[in-house]
Amino acid sequence: MAKRNLYLDTKPVDEADALYRAALQQVLHIQYETIPVSEALNRVTRHAAYAKYCSPLFNASAMDGIAVIAERTESASEAQPVLLKEKADYIPVDTGDPIHPPYNAVIMAEDLVETEDGVLIIASAAPWQHVRPIGEDIVAGEMILPGNHKIRPIDVGVLLSAGITEIEVVKKPAVAIFPTGTEIIEPEQEPGEGSIIESNSRMFENMVTEAGGTAHRFPPIIDDYEQIRNSIDRAVDEYDMVIVNAGSSAGTEDYTVHVLRELGQVLVHGVAIKPGKPVILAIVRGKPVIGLPGYPVSAYIGFENFVEPVLTMMTKAPAKRRETVQAHLSKRLVSSLKHKEYVRVKVGKVGDKMVAAPLARGAGAAMSLVRADGFCVIEQNSEGAEAGSQVQVELYRDKEAVENTVVIIGSHDLILDVAADMMPDKSRGMFISSTHVGSMGGLMALKRKEAHLAPIHLLDEATGEYNISYIKRLFGTEKMALIKGVGRTQGILVKKGNPLNIKGIQDLTGCRYVNRQRGAGTRILLDYQLKQLGIDPTEINGYQREAATHMAVAAAVSDDGADAGMGILSAAKAMDLDFIPVGPEEYDFAVPQEYLELPHIKAFIEILKSEEFHQRLNQLGGYTFERAGENERI
Amino acid sequence: MAKRNLYLDTKPVDEADALYRAALQQVLHIQYETIPVSEALNRVTRHAAYAKYCSPLFNASAMDGIAVIAERTESASEAQPVLLKEKADYIPVDTGDPIHPPYNAVIMAEDLVETEDGVLIIASAAPWQHVRPIGEDIVAGEMILPGNHKIRPIDVGVLLSAGITEIEVVKKPAVAIFPTGTEIIEPEQEPGEGSIIESNSRMFENMVTEAGGTAHRFPPIIDDYEQIRNSIDRAVDEYDMVIVNAGSSAGTEDYTVHVLRELGQVLVHGVAIKPGKPVILAIVRGKPVIGLPGYPVSAYIGFENFVEPVLTMMTKAPAKRRETVQAHLSKRLVSSLKHKEYVRVKVGKVGDKMVAAPLARGAGAAMSLVRADGFCVIEQNSEGAEAGSQVQVELYRDKEAVENTVVIIGSHDLILDVAADMMPDKSRGMFISSTHVGSMGGLMALKRKEAHLAPIHLLDEATGEYNISYIKRLFGTEKMALIKGVGRTQGILVKKGNPLNIKGIQDLTGCRYVNRQRGAGTRILLDYQLKQLGIDPTEINGYQREAATHMAVAAAVSDDGADAGMGILSAAKAMDLDFIPVGPEEYDFAVPQEYLELPHIKAFIEILKSEEFHQRLNQLGGYTFERAGENERI
Repeated sequence: MAKRNLYLDTKPVDEADALYRAALQQVLHIQYETIPVSEALNRVTRHAAYAKYCSPLFNASAMDGIAVIAERTESASEAQPVLLKEKADYIPVDTGDPIHPPYNAVIMAEDLVETEDGVLIIASAAPWQHVRPIGEDIVAGEMILPGNHKIRPIDVGVLLSAGITEIEVVKKPAVAIFPTGTEIIEPEQEPGEGSIIESNSRMFENMVTEAGGTAHRFPPIIDDYEQIRNSIDRAVDEYDMVIVNAGSSAGTEDYTVHVLRELGQVLVHGVAIKPGKPVILAIVRGKPVIGLPGYPVSAYIGFENFVEPVLTMMTKAPAKRRETVQAHLSKRLVSSLKHKEYVRVKVGKVGDKMVAAPLARGAGAAMSLVRADGFCVIEQNSEGAEAGSQVQVELYRDKEAVENTVVIIGSHDLILDVAADMMPDKSRGMFISSTHVGSMGGLMALKRKEAHLAPIHLLDEATGEYNISYIKRLFGTEKMALIKGVGRTQGILVKKGNPLNIKGIQDLTGCRYVNRQRGAGTRILLDYQLKQLGIDPTEINGYQREAATHMAVAAAVSDDGADAGMGILSAAKAMDLDFIPVGPEEYDFAVPQEYLELPHIKAFIEILKSEEFHQRLNQLGGYTFERAGENERI
Repeated sequence: MAKRNLYLDTKPVDEADALYRAALQQVLHIQYETIPVSEALNRVTRHAAYAKYCSPLFNASAMDGIAVIAERTESASEAQPVLLKEKADYIPVDTGDPIHPPYNAVIMAEDLVETEDGVLIIASAAPWQHVRPIGEDIVAGEMILPGNHKIRPIDVGVLLSAGITEIEVVKKPAVAIFPTGTEIIEPEQEPGEGSIIESNSRMFENMVTEAGGTAHRFPPIIDDYEQIRNSIDRAVDEYDMVIVNAGSSAGTEDYTVHVLRELGQVLVHGVAIKPGKPVILAIVRGKPVIGLPGYPVSAYIGFENFVEPVLTMMTKAPAKRRETVQAHLSKRLVSSLKHKEYVRVKVGKVGDKMVAAPLARGAGAAMSLVRADGFCVIEQNSEGAEAGSQVQVELYRDKEAVENTVVIIGSHDLILDVAADMMPDKSRGMFISSTHVGSMGGLMALKRKEAHLAPIHLLDEATGEYNISYIKRLFGTEKMALIKGVGRTQGILVKKGNPLNIKGIQDLTGCRYVNRQRGAGTRILLDYQLKQLGIDPTEINGYQREAATHMAVAAAVSDDGADAGMGILSAAKAMDLDFIPVGPEEYDFAVPQEYLELPHIKAFIEILKSEEFHQRLNQLGGYTFERAGENERI
């Protein structure tokens, strides 16, 4: 087999970052340009800006009224009003009009009594009353903005009123982005055998934009040493920074590190970070060139940790900071001493505590980044944290949004996505987050006060009744309720046309099955059915193969890796599979009574009851909803 | 005199906002457009987005190694290795390669022993080990993003990997901005008699951009009913929203409200907000048309309170929220029950408390917005707050930046601006904020623990010594220090060429003088000099006329409203005035000893000592700095 590279080292994150930035500090040339102030929003000033003009430009009336000579009004009183004549004693002024000598005060229109001979005043005017002195706001020569200042809309306004129309700012760094890989295709192309849709480079483009740079994405380069070298070599001349993705790993076709060693200096190859280890930090002819890994989560975390700090150096903009909160960890997190780990978590406020629930930890789990509310960072010197312990979470959603989110943990159904979609539209500022751990897992989370609602579909074999007996058994005398959800049909998902002619549970022994995880209502249902039929689970090929959601089962069956799996009709329809019904069941929401009055729980119940929701269930197919949104106290 | 309009009402802010938005809710049509996903950053989705493809698209190897048939490896052990032959028993795979039947597991390259006949394995492979199942990350048909979701860089990546290349999003509202006023000029024009540089419209452009709209600014319209009406009328057809600035007040030439009454419906004219009262909220043919006041602070606050919420409705983006902090108010704030007031404050952390120092409150004080760290909002039902009381501040600077800011309150000198300019460049993330209340005011602020440093120049008449005796008298046994600042020359600022031939203090009785405020070191110096010469202050015309800084004095003298004022050489140079020296003085910084070790105070001291600072003082002129940065314990 072909030889692979070994990483020379895996440096701790902070060490790698410090080493790289210190080296760049020696060679980077921050560039500047002079641009119109009206286009300078969010740009960073090079030097302090000094006013060219005063504002106001002259002594100006601060009121509508008349400009007078204060000394001539001294004797005015209610008993002895003074008559002032236009032009001789006063001139009329509107707010903003200039006040010149001999005038040195303004009397408001409201304080004048108009007569045929002129105006009467019944009080003296103090010198300079109601006059905005020249330079009251800005004095010519005064510093308006310091250097290294990021320009805001108000700054644009003030610079212009002070007569400054152009300003020298830090030039936006131009960043070249190279996607590499023989197997990658563009998102617009039809995927073929083995193709991988390349999307990291588009994510990087947008991350560069957000960090204040301009991104130039190149078309994908195949895994070819010469092509990669020539592309990078040319880009280093034309751009301020180069990102290469991927090929930064230690595989047989990972050329990037060799190319960078040839062209310049590789300071770091491999960082003790998870996900994101295969990072390359190099300098070629004074320019930063960074190789990032291909897995989307690794790519994202690599960018945040190594590209963004360099862009911050180059733009001189203040570094982005995330709000952090303390949260209770919902399950144990074990992490290796070999690396710092970025665990994506969903965060919710349940009762008076914040709860962080870890999501999928794989480097390929891009959806974990989409669905996450933040990162829980496990430092390299830590082996992890216990369930229930306090951890710090870097939020990337607004804290207030997190606090107004219904936290749902339990069994998966597509209707949760529909409700999550409807929520912010129906009730502005409120959201639904759902994590899928199966029915029993959901009840346990509810018990630990980590969720507001647990969606469950648990058949009591003794009574044939759904859900209620499980809640009673687990929660005893705690005041609980059941919010009725939907009726749905469980069945066997098989390939289109049902090529193996599966008619029911009894036929599962003859095919490659894909099961659900332990504690899932669907698995409990299968076990019940197998017991009824006297079939031993070991007779089922694939009983140990687990998928976490109905949709994951459907995906496995749609592929040629599995023939059958149990799930719901809507999942079969979504993946265009055939469906053999096994039986109806009730999918409801367990909830502590105390949460029923929370505004976002009420909003959720309203959605369950709504016409629009029922219409969307009809589109999904296979649901009944006569009692959706009703609640029973238990 | 010409007649003026009266406001029909001044509605409370919340009432005005609610009324207007409720009316708009009935008539606004949110518009949508379909755009490439790669250009959809920060746009808001119309509907939920569902995956077109699975990711991965197929069962894929999660490792570099070989794909095997798990069942054929069952007997492998260290004692009895199994030999596998390429093509017959395995195929080599790299990470990401597809795994097809009959292969159903991957063995890592590291676990293989290569021989001439094939590879030896010493452990069995569990079915599906090291295989990323199809749809592990995303299942086709799964909801990726909900509706009403603001798209982030990661979302762009995931949408594209799921095969979604176009997306329907909320269209950016197009906003027409009309500056009006006969006296206004463009910033590029040379200002003449009575001209006002128009800059609000440029500020609005940038505020619209930040709120997710596209701004179109029109050239200024003169105060002419027909022209204003025709412009608005046409814009309502072509744009989604119209902003008119100013002419929203009740003056003789304020036509906007009449035009809007003719074209549509004026819902609100006049809001109980300060600054910002003359706001017009109207609807013309289903489009929002908003009149905003002309004073820059009023314009800004009016936009934030009335335009931004409407743009948030139209973009469906989450509303902007500012971080709030509790802070001690540094001085009493009295506010009327007639309005809600937005007081601009500087915020600093002194010791362990946050302190908010109110800035200039006038509607024309645009620099107060530039210099502020946040707003202290005094509700309409409140008459204000006492000095030392806790108030809530909406920050618009980063809280961490506020905490790393040296808070300087006291006498004004241009060198404070220079230091503030140098600080963030020398010590990244550290800042200087200075508020000018005179030397005595600064010492009082220090005493109340509202500042780190008080810049002072206080002459002890008895000893001729500067500063130290004042600190001793005021702070008694408290452990204080004096950081030496600069030597500078006080003098009389007169017009270029000194037309009145002023030679010294004795000549001030014959001219129009502009004084400094009570407590200012410069005023104390004048009083001392007058006493020496036996001149009574009442003999000085303008002794009562106060300006708050050296630069404000210089501005008054440069205008024809005053002939002379006392101040420092650098202010005279900045405004191109003549300068008659009166005498040298010492401008130093009083500081409690406990602050000397704070990192940002140390950074400030380093700046005082630095070569670059001394060079910049030489450019300003009139300073000596032999001992700058030294400190004496008192």
